[in-house]
Amino acid sequence: MPRTPSALPSPVGPVRLTADARTALRPAAVTVDGGFWHDRRATNARVSLPQGPDLLESAGNLHNLRLAAPVPEALPGTAADGAFQGAYPFVDTDVYKWLEAASWHLAHDTGEGTGEELAADVARIIDLVAAAQQPDGYLNTWFQLVKGGERYQDLRWGHELYCAGHLIQAAVAHHRATGRTELLDVAQKFADHIDSMFGLPGSGRPIDGIDGHPEVETALVELYRETGDRRCLDLAGYFVDRHGHGLLGGEAYCQDRVPLREATNVEGHAVRQLYLLAAAADLAAETGDAELRSACERLWHAMTTTKTHLTGGLGAHHDQEDFGDPYELPNERAYCETCAAIASVQWSWRMALLTGEARYSDLIERTLYNGFLAGVSLDGERWLYVNPLQVRDGHTDTGGDQSARRTRWFRCACCPPNVMRLLASLEHYLASGDEQGLQIHQFVTGTYATDRVRVRAETDYPWHGTIAFTVEETPAPADGPWTLSLRIPQWCREFRVRCGEETYDPVADDGWLRLSRTWTPGDRVVLELSMEPRLTAADPRVDAVRGCVAIERGPLVHCLEQVDHPGGGLDDIVLDPSRPLAVKHRPDLLGGVTTVVAAGRRRRIPDQGWWPYAPAHDVPSEPDGEPVELTAIPYHVWANREDGSMRVWLPTS
Amino acid sequence: MPRTPSALPSPVGPVRLTADARTALRPAAVTVDGGFWHDRRATNARVSLPQGPDLLESAGNLHNLRLAAPVPEALPGTAADGAFQGAYPFVDTDVYKWLEAASWHLAHDTGEGTGEELAADVARIIDLVAAAQQPDGYLNTWFQLVKGGERYQDLRWGHELYCAGHLIQAAVAHHRATGRTELLDVAQKFADHIDSMFGLPGSGRPIDGIDGHPEVETALVELYRETGDRRCLDLAGYFVDRHGHGLLGGEAYCQDRVPLREATNVEGHAVRQLYLLAAAADLAAETGDAELRSACERLWHAMTTTKTHLTGGLGAHHDQEDFGDPYELPNERAYCETCAAIASVQWSWRMALLTGEARYSDLIERTLYNGFLAGVSLDGERWLYVNPLQVRDGHTDTGGDQSARRTRWFRCACCPPNVMRLLASLEHYLASGDEQGLQIHQFVTGTYATDRVRVRAETDYPWHGTIAFTVEETPAPADGPWTLSLRIPQWCREFRVRCGEETYDPVADDGWLRLSRTWTPGDRVVLELSMEPRLTAADPRVDAVRGCVAIERGPLVHCLEQVDHPGGGLDDIVLDPSRPLAVKHRPDLLGGVTTVVAAGRRRRIPDQGWWPYAPAHDVPSEPDGEPVELTAIPYHVWANREDGSMRVWLPTS
Repeated sequence: MPRTPSALPSPVGPVRLTADARTALRPAAVTVDGGFWHDRRATNARVSLPQGPDLLESAGNLHNLRLAAPVPEALPGTAADGAFQGAYPFVDTDVYKWLEAASWHLAHDTGEGTGEELAADVARIIDLVAAAQQPDGYLNTWFQLVKGGERYQDLRWGHELYCAGHLIQAAVAHHRATGRTELLDVAQKFADHIDSMFGLPGSGRPIDGIDGHPEVETALVELYRETGDRRCLDLAGYFVDRHGHGLLGGEAYCQDRVPLREATNVEGHAVRQLYLLAAAADLAAETGDAELRSACERLWHAMTTTKTHLTGGLGAHHDQEDFGDPYELPNERAYCETCAAIASVQWSWRMALLTGEARYSDLIERTLYNGFLAGVSLDGERWLYVNPLQVRDGHTDTGGDQSARRTRWFRCACCPPNVMRLLASLEHYLASGDEQGLQIHQFVTGTYATDRVRVRAETDYPWHGTIAFTVEETPAPADGPWTLSLRIPQWCREFRVRCGEETYDPVADDGWLRLSRTWTPGDRVVLELSMEPRLTAADPRVDAVRGCVAIERGPLVHCLEQVDHPGGGLDDIVLDPSRPLAVKHRPDLLGGVTTVVAAGRRRRIPDQGWWPYAPAHDVPSEPDGEPVELTAIPYHVWANREDGSMRVWLPTS
Repeated sequence: MPRTPSALPSPVGPVRLTADARTALRPAAVTVDGGFWHDRRATNARVSLPQGPDLLESAGNLHNLRLAAPVPEALPGTAADGAFQGAYPFVDTDVYKWLEAASWHLAHDTGEGTGEELAADVARIIDLVAAAQQPDGYLNTWFQLVKGGERYQDLRWGHELYCAGHLIQAAVAHHRATGRTELLDVAQKFADHIDSMFGLPGSGRPIDGIDGHPEVETALVELYRETGDRRCLDLAGYFVDRHGHGLLGGEAYCQDRVPLREATNVEGHAVRQLYLLAAAADLAAETGDAELRSACERLWHAMTTTKTHLTGGLGAHHDQEDFGDPYELPNERAYCETCAAIASVQWSWRMALLTGEARYSDLIERTLYNGFLAGVSLDGERWLYVNPLQVRDGHTDTGGDQSARRTRWFRCACCPPNVMRLLASLEHYLASGDEQGLQIHQFVTGTYATDRVRVRAETDYPWHGTIAFTVEETPAPADGPWTLSLRIPQWCREFRVRCGEETYDPVADDGWLRLSRTWTPGDRVVLELSMEPRLTAADPRVDAVRGCVAIERGPLVHCLEQVDHPGGGLDDIVLDPSRPLAVKHRPDLLGGVTTVVAAGRRRRIPDQGWWPYAPAHDVPSEPDGEPVELTAIPYHVWANREDGSMRVWLPTS
């Protein structure tokens, strides 16, 4: 050593950088075999993933594929008649995302008994997908069954390339995970078709256009990574740069108002914006495009400083699923689509690799433990599409996909299989390597490895702040020192580290605690992050939470649920910030959580008649209300008990 | 005297109660001939109304009527071909609302020269409407031209009865204003058709159903008032009571989740809810139904205490144009549709007549001067569909109907002709009479009259608080005393009144200042309302404005606009509530307004890096910012200059 980072192979997983990629870091190989995320992934493997095929069957997604197969009788048992089922032109993606999720799971299947059956389901469904593909490579059941002959006529809403993107992602995952090519062949054929159809004027392609919903861009970079076919990389670059030139009418919703290279803040439909940015980061990594990288850095900073909820949730508007304006971060109407949290993790991970900066993984941690994980119930069977930070007393639920109550499946079922694919591939977002050594971005129980070193970690994080590392494999001492880098979370104000008998004086100004030494197998490092609960306040421009604090502990945002506070709702509750917070481990509660207990009271609000506004100097000073002990549960387990109100942000006076 | 109220005739105008109506008060006859509302109505008459026919022509509404006429050649110059124009099944209502507005104007036309041309336009357009009606009375150009044969198949979204309702309202207005029956005949024929089609099971009618958008209910009561045809009243009652029984699937959006008699708060689509409640109040007035009256009183109280913005604006959600939850009153995403403000005035006026209580007219005043009037530009040519209480720094406008920027016309053009009809009929919402005398609900320059008394008022309200009344007609002294009742606005904490040389010790506990005496022509009463500007705070459950105050003066809510505060935006501005407010009359500004000047500063917000949340005890105390003089203009004139940010609610620390 040192070796150039590009010489390090990437493990099987998303963002498998090519040898030419110009990134600061490259993904490391991680196995998760215990602790918090292992449990959640086990539920994903045991409950969520196996239920997928039946849900896709009953929602009609598989039916559509059968119906679209030009020779259905060629597939025994697949003959179908009837009409297209589903409300949207992109229902095929539910199948593709499930295939991707199942494929990632098959790559690391630890033999819990579901593997064989899952592999059979995957094979069966891939057969359906392949059969539905048209001879020229095109594949979209909505257009084949309902809009015959109208291909690429409605790029704004048709989602044809969006669907292609998820097909490609699934194919890449399937190939990486299993080495099999059935789905990759389908994807490559579709990509060839797209390449023959789309291009700049003068390129000989009939259409100069983009899809209203980005996704194909990042997928094409992944396909390039898998096959080395440079056309895919170029096509991705073409699509990214044609956004913002009015090809779809110039709407922010479609990422068409301003070219990404010139944009000053994220805008429009949050998931569309984030998938496009993931592709931009992919391109910057694979091509070294400094302008794209700089645009990504600028937009990430603008997003986190002005448009990100405390939970990492993104998207302030229900209407148009839009980001909203700077510092517009409502609580009860936070949209914070589960898919936006996932897209944010995907983009931030690409940025972490590209730049080597810890803040990207800070946001990933916050998002994973809060805005993302709230999207799936503890039992793995029920889902949230939107993830508000407040449900009011007297809330009237409108039902439907955007309900603040968990649902078994959605009409627009984008989120559940998206959660499944992130959980199934989670180990690929946790650590990286470079010529200096190994960087641990997220703390889990398991092993972290580059091709030269392996470190095991044991932890009860996020419930406790101690993480014990043991060096398992390391080059011979003669090869010199290497650096074990531990991310010190942005939320953490106090930590200690011991290496064997030594105690380090920790410095982690840029978010990395770097331990450089000549390591020996068996060397131990113990990191202790202070998990004191804390009250958090927001920038004063976040009008929605003025005069409020939130309770946090470690990476977890906490919230109050009505069920823990009998005798009333939550909207009259006031927290007393002068009283200490207490920590209570509750193995009995919600599968075992740590709660934070705070002191508060219920306001007594004097009756002001029919008009709730009064002269400011007249407002009678509130009499002291009845004291209440406040029990704050982790936000990610909310909405797993009876319906009721919920609050993250709590008034202090 | 005393005479029973029912014996008092109602003047020509909306809510022309029958002699049998059981209300506390009956509308009085008012003319407005000077001052604030006269100017606004003159612009309506001079600019908005005359532009209507051209706008309806270019948007295709009149084209649709021509196209739907079964024998277009019968109408010279009206032959048309082509397709239905417009995006919605209810575009006919734009025509009907304009006809209603023009008719009300014709009733009080003071000869500004537009009357004759307007009357010709009205006649011409009524001919189109009549020609488009089908032989059995049915009329809806969308269904006739696009959905032939699908009548009443989509009551949830088809808007057929909603369109019928606005046709009936227009016909009633035209008949009341001109005595002519051309349009009334069309409406009556359609009403007969509806009566033959809709009814309870067992009634012999084929359909037991309701329209997803209420409006026909209140219209049918008005038609009953005009024609005495009891079937219309019964049909209105049937429609009102069939809401809430799941006939449309049980959605709150369609007012179908819960029967109105059982509802505990307003909910769903705000305009739909309010039109339905107007009908309920109409029914309670005409039938004496105590349960309906009590439901209206309960829902009005729930709405004002928990779901009304400071401006009187109603509807918190863009999505579904919904009321939202109790105390969910966002600023930047306040929907506050202009039509909802109009519907609120219509309902509250019916409640004022029904009960005699002043608070209903308090809300009308607040709505007229703020949430309603902001809907039309000073020049009468540009409109707002939504009326937010904040536009943020860095706002990205999405364009479209729901833009926070004024628009010449909308795809869904419900609001502009609705504003026109309220302005054209405004004098009918201002005063009432009963056996005791005359009640003045709103202060204008003009005359207020019952059949026995007439009082003239002169005022520069709302810019100044002095209103001078002169008794012009009064029964002979031998007929005894009568009572001149003046509403003392809910916002007003200090007022004086002089009657000739006497100064009254004013008591107005219930909102009415009652002056009972034997009056003589020439008697003078001068009311002086203190117009000291004030800072207003909200109920602490209104999370969106915690730690903020609003500036008000008289009935006017004020706001800051960026254009008056050069050197930055508005989101970093803090108001100092300890410093006095000053009043500045500005004849130069926005057609002449009174501004309120306050002391504030711009925060200096320390850079906290990429994450806008921090431990509450760590938040650095803000250094004093640069002092700024804050100029607060009346909210109703915002968005009449250059685009920029705007705020009603201002942080105080």
